[in-house]
Formats: sequence, structure tokens, C-alpha cells
Amino acid sequence: MKTDLCKKLGLDAPIFAFTHCRDVVVEVSKAGGIGVFGAAGYTPEQLKQELDWIQDKVGDKPFGIDVIMPNNYMGDEVPDLEAMIPEEHKVWVESVMQKYDIPPLPRDLDGDSYHSVNGSDIGWTHKICRQLLEVAFEYPNLKVMVNALGTPPQDILDTCKEKGILVGALAGKVKHAVAHKEGGLDFVVAQGHEAGGHTGKVTTMVLIPQVVDAVHPMPVLAAGGIGGGRQMAAAMALGAEGVWCGSVWLTSPESEVEPLPKRKLIEATSEDTVQSKMISGKPARMLRSKWTDEWESEECPGALPMPLQGMLAQEAHIRIARAQNEELAFYPTGQIVGMMNEEKGCKTIMYDMLNEYLESLERLNGLLEEA
Amino acid sequence: MKTDLCKKLGLDAPIFAFTHCRDVVVEVSKAGGIGVFGAAGYTPEQLKQELDWIQDKVGDKPFGIDVIMPNNYMGDEVPDLEAMIPEEHKVWVESVMQKYDIPPLPRDLDGDSYHSVNGSDIGWTHKICRQLLEVAFEYPNLKVMVNALGTPPQDILDTCKEKGILVGALAGKVKHAVAHKEGGLDFVVAQGHEAGGHTGKVTTMVLIPQVVDAVHPMPVLAAGGIGGGRQMAAAMALGAEGVWCGSVWLTSPESEVEPLPKRKLIEATSEDTVQSKMISGKPARMLRSKWTDEWESEECPGALPMPLQGMLAQEAHIRIARAQNEELAFYPTGQIVGMMNEEKGCKTIMYDMLNEYLESLERLNGLLEEA
Repeated sequence: MKTDLCKKLGLDAPIFAFTHCRDVVVEVSKAGGIGVFGAAGYTPEQLKQELDWIQDKVGDKPFGIDVIMPNNYMGDEVPDLEAMIPEEHKVWVESVMQKYDIPPLPRDLDGDSYHSVNGSDIGWTHKICRQLLEVAFEYPNLKVMVNALGTPPQDILDTCKEKGILVGALAGKVKHAVAHKEGGLDFVVAQGHEAGGHTGKVTTMVLIPQVVDAVHPMPVLAAGGIGGGRQMAAAMALGAEGVWCGSVWLTSPESEVEPLPKRKLIEATSEDTVQSKMISGKPARMLRSKWTDEWESEECPGALPMPLQGMLAQEAHIRIARAQNEELAFYPTGQIVGMMNEEKGCKTIMYDMLNEYLESLERLNGLLEEA
Repeated sequence: MKTDLCKKLGLDAPIFAFTHCRDVVVEVSKAGGIGVFGAAGYTPEQLKQELDWIQDKVGDKPFGIDVIMPNNYMGDEVPDLEAMIPEEHKVWVESVMQKYDIPPLPRDLDGDSYHSVNGSDIGWTHKICRQLLEVAFEYPNLKVMVNALGTPPQDILDTCKEKGILVGALAGKVKHAVAHKEGGLDFVVAQGHEAGGHTGKVTTMVLIPQVVDAVHPMPVLAAGGIGGGRQMAAAMALGAEGVWCGSVWLTSPESEVEPLPKRKLIEATSEDTVQSKMISGKPARMLRSKWTDEWESEECPGALPMPLQGMLAQEAHIRIARAQNEELAFYPTGQIVGMMNEEKGCKTIMYDMLNEYLESLERLNGLLEEA
């Protein structure tokens, strides 16, 4: 199947795999889709290491990068954010850690351990984000750059254009998609309520056709609730030019997810996710756990605004991950988690998706012929 | 397009129109779909009047009826429900009415005015529900019976089977759908989070394939977020045998909706709905207004369980409707409301849906051919 984006990027299928795991990037790109590496949470040095690896393994296939560059961010001159976190919040977080016997971090913990959870605040400032992009722009096979929060600034767009990198951005509302079009982006990722990570209220079924109509002829990728070929066919039927999948790779053997949260993801039903401001301060969907419940409890002083919430919660997330606490363990994921019931390789996920896509289309054509 | 349900019911297209308006039932059935009349809120006498009219106008086309028969209901011996409503709740409702200058009901108000809003508690007991069904079973063109809340009891199923009436029920969770299958129903309406009225958490995109797989080979209708042909194609791609649409008829000229809420529906975006327990005590999606906001406010003592909440709120709903209060006016609707931007006749809605369905399928086939 060939959409315009497929042609421009040389893809066999318009499947965009958002992931924090370099192995997933390579597997999906090599299977004919495109892996998009989520760079938020990495330092520029760490990112270079990851992208070196990807560039080395990906052969002649393209890959992408996803950054979190808030368009309403306070600017490059970062104030003393640490001082802006209320003591009450720190005390409450610590009280929950003690309630569940979560040990403190060892003093000699190195920065790498910060990758044990996603949603870190590192890289959520324009300044660090630009450093990450400077690193990424050096790789010849980098062909896609996506911003998860807002329209990227003009100079970044100019650099991408010059380097032949297609630029997209996520949109949970029609007006965000329109802003991306006016900003001159190449495509929009319209993401429904059911998606993992930061999401809005409007579901994929309702959002996609409205975004498609609003930004026409700009191509739209559909995100949220897409893990199989029937859902991919549905997304394309809604007018999308391709799909953006994030959750479905989390339970693959290639994924970065630790055994405990991976098992919880495999066991979870679609009822077991929740939208919470716990990770970043903005509503994001994740596996529900006692930890997300604590953030909804009456004792909780409430989530802080971005980026303070990330700074407040990040250490606790690392501690929970290190402690391998069954009750508290969580992971950002969409409602599709209810269909991720076994560990399946990225290539198998992709080929299953494409086969099911064709079967679904065949069924639709069959229903017409009988008429 | 011919699915099994189309063949059994003699439909040209598997479009099921849920509506509280007899005109919509007739228009949709005559256009080749099937109108399903929402009987909750009617007395048996009123229902007879409505169904007489439908039977008279519908010619040789089939129609359906939808009832609300809670499967965990307290039984036929209804206790003094009125006495179970706390005084605090009544006082709070009255205080909101006064805050917005909503006059009390005139003393001589007749029962008919109860149809000015949906979601009435009348007919939400097994006893009244059975009376409604007894009325409905007399009509030869009644070919579908759907229960909105749970698997109907065995004797009702037996009667339906005897009379050649297909029985379905709504399901917002996979386990509800499985219960319907085990209960021996003919089809399931799997309804996503984005739907109007009573809904669960899981969206249409994620719910439909799971329900389809869980109840196979039982046919599944998709509900929630479906108002156009692209969405119908998406629903069918997900494995549905047809679509169940409720909101999309509300802004038709045939609809029962009063001018003020109809205008608000036409103006609303997909962001303007909210899930609230305000109408019935169970979460239902509706247009957000100052009235739904009041139910979320700190002063509100909270919604009561079903059926008490309906009894508590119903008079207020009639008063708000009669007062034509701009701020408080609301109406049950799904997120598709953001695409209902003009008054369009039911037949036009249906033909537009079918044309767009074909265009969507043509586009999908075109993308494959180019490969």
C-alpha cells in the first residue's frame, strides 16, 4: 500500500512506530515501516550513543526522532525550577514511598538509570531539545522529526527542510492540527483519547475525519487504539494516510520495558488504563496501579504544572521501577493494551498487522459484492 | 452491502438508528436502514400511540424498539423510592434552579411534557418495561428488540423468538458482550466511550475487535463515534456487521429535539461533551452545560444510584427545557456532535453516509492497487 508519505520515505507500509527502544526502531524500519525514536529523557551524549547504534543497524532504511518541545514553554532561561516545587508535594510523595516500602535511590546512581522509566523531564526544555536535535541532524538516515507537544519553531523547520527531513507533530484537537498546517509542517499525527501518553478527550474514531478535513491535503497519521490490521484499516478508512503506533511494541521481546511492567501490560485489559497528570503534569494515559490511584486520592495535594510535576515524580518512578514493586508498577500505554496478550516480535507484529489489514479489506469488498 | 443482519431483516444497509422520535424511525426504515424507537420515558399508553403511528407509516419496512431493563434491578416489588431520595439532594437541586431563575412546573402539567427530555426514570423498572414490551409485541413490523442495560430475561427472549423478533443488547465491556452471547441473544451492540448516553471507558476503535473476537460468530453492531460513511467503513473494518447510530439524527428536521438544544448541538464541537451521572446515576455522555458543571461542583452532594438519580433530576430537566435556559440546556449526545454542523434530513444523512462509505472503500482499494 502506497500513500504519499510511503513514497516520500520509501516505506512499504505507512506504519510509524513510536518507541523509546533502539531495537524497535531498527526492527520496524527494516520490516518496511519506520521506527521513530523518542528522544525525551536522554542527554545529548546518550542520544548520540543510541542513534549511532540505530544508524549502524538500519542499513539503507530511514528512521525518525520524536522530541517534546512545548510551544508554550517558558523560554531558554530556565528559572530555579527545583525551588518552585512545594514542600507539601515532596513530603506527600515520600510518604507514599514509605507506605509501600520503596527504598531511596543509592547515592552513586548514574544517569543511565533514568531510562528505566519514560516521561522524564530531561529534554523538555527548548534548550536541551535543541541540543538533542543538533545531535540527531547528523545522521543521514534520519528522515522524520516529530514534536509531541506543539508546532516546532521556524528555524528547526528550516533545518529539516534543508536536510530533507519530514516534520510532523501530534494533535489531540482539530485546532492544534490546523496550527501545525499553518506552521508549515509536512504531516500531522492526530491522536485519540484511547492513545497512550499525552492525550486529549476526543477519540480516534471522531477525531481523525475532522482533522483530515481541516488540514486537507496535508497527510494525517492516525494514533490511538491501533495495534492490529483491522484497526489500521479503520484508521485508513477514516481518511488517515498511515498509522502511528506506540503501545503495541511495548510487549515485544525487543522492547525496553522491564519484566514486571511488561507482564502487567500483557495481563492488562483495556479497562486497566487511566488518564493521569502524574508523569508530566498534563493528562497522559498509562496502566492503572496503586501509584496512579494514590495520585487520585484525597490525601494527594494534586499534580503540579509541567515541567515541575515531572521533576517531582521522576525520582519516585525510578525508585518504583528499581524496587520492582508489583502494586505500584505502571507504564504509559493506550487502551490497545487489552489486545497485547503475548510477547510477539516487532516484525511479527508488523506482518500480522498487514495481513489482517488485507483480510479486513477483503471482507469489506466481499460485503459489497454480495449486495 | 449485505451482512447477515441485513438479510434477516431485509435491510439495504446495516444502519440501525436509535431514536426517541417516531419520525426518525420511519424515515430511516423507509430509506433502507432500520429505526429503533427508544421506549424508555413513555407510558404504555403513550408508547401505543407512537407505535400505531410508526406501523401506519412504515409500510412493509421493519422497525425496532429499545428498552432500558437493568439486569441488576431490585425486582418487581418496587419500594418507596421517593422516600429514599435524601432531602439534601432535593434542596441542592432546588438551589441551582433558583440560582438560574428556573420557574417551577405549572400544577396542571400533563404527562406528555415528560418527553421534552430523555432519560426519564419511567420505564426503568422491570414491571413497566414488561408493560411496554407487551404493547410493542402487538405490532407485526416490530423485528428488533434491544435492551440498553443488560441481558434481557429468558421469557422475553422466548417471546421474541416465537414472534421472529431479533434481540440485541448494548455492551460497553467485553464481558457484557460475552454475557449477552451466553444469554442467547441474536446480536450485540458494542458501544464505545465516545457514544452518547450510557457509555463505558473503552473507545470504539479498541472495543469493537475485542467484542467481535469474543462473541464470534454472533454479529456485532458498532456504536459510538459513527455519524458518517468513513466512520461506518471504519466500524465495518473493525469487524462490525453494521452500525448503531444515535446522535446523528438529533439535528435532523425530523428530530424531537427542541430548537434551543438543537442549536447548541449544531454549534458544539467534539470537545463539548461530558460523561456525567446526572441523568440516571450511571455515567452517560451528553452536551456539557452549566447544569452538568453544577453536578461536578464542590457544592453538589453527588449523583444518587439508579433509579433514584433519574427521579431526583427529572423534574429539573423538564423545568430547564421549559424555561429554554441557554446556559443550562443540555442533551445526551456523543462526541460525533462536532460533525453535526447543519440541519440535515434523515434520508440525506443515510444516503450521504452510504456514499461516503463507498468513497472510503474505493480509496482503500486504490491505495492497494498503487502498491
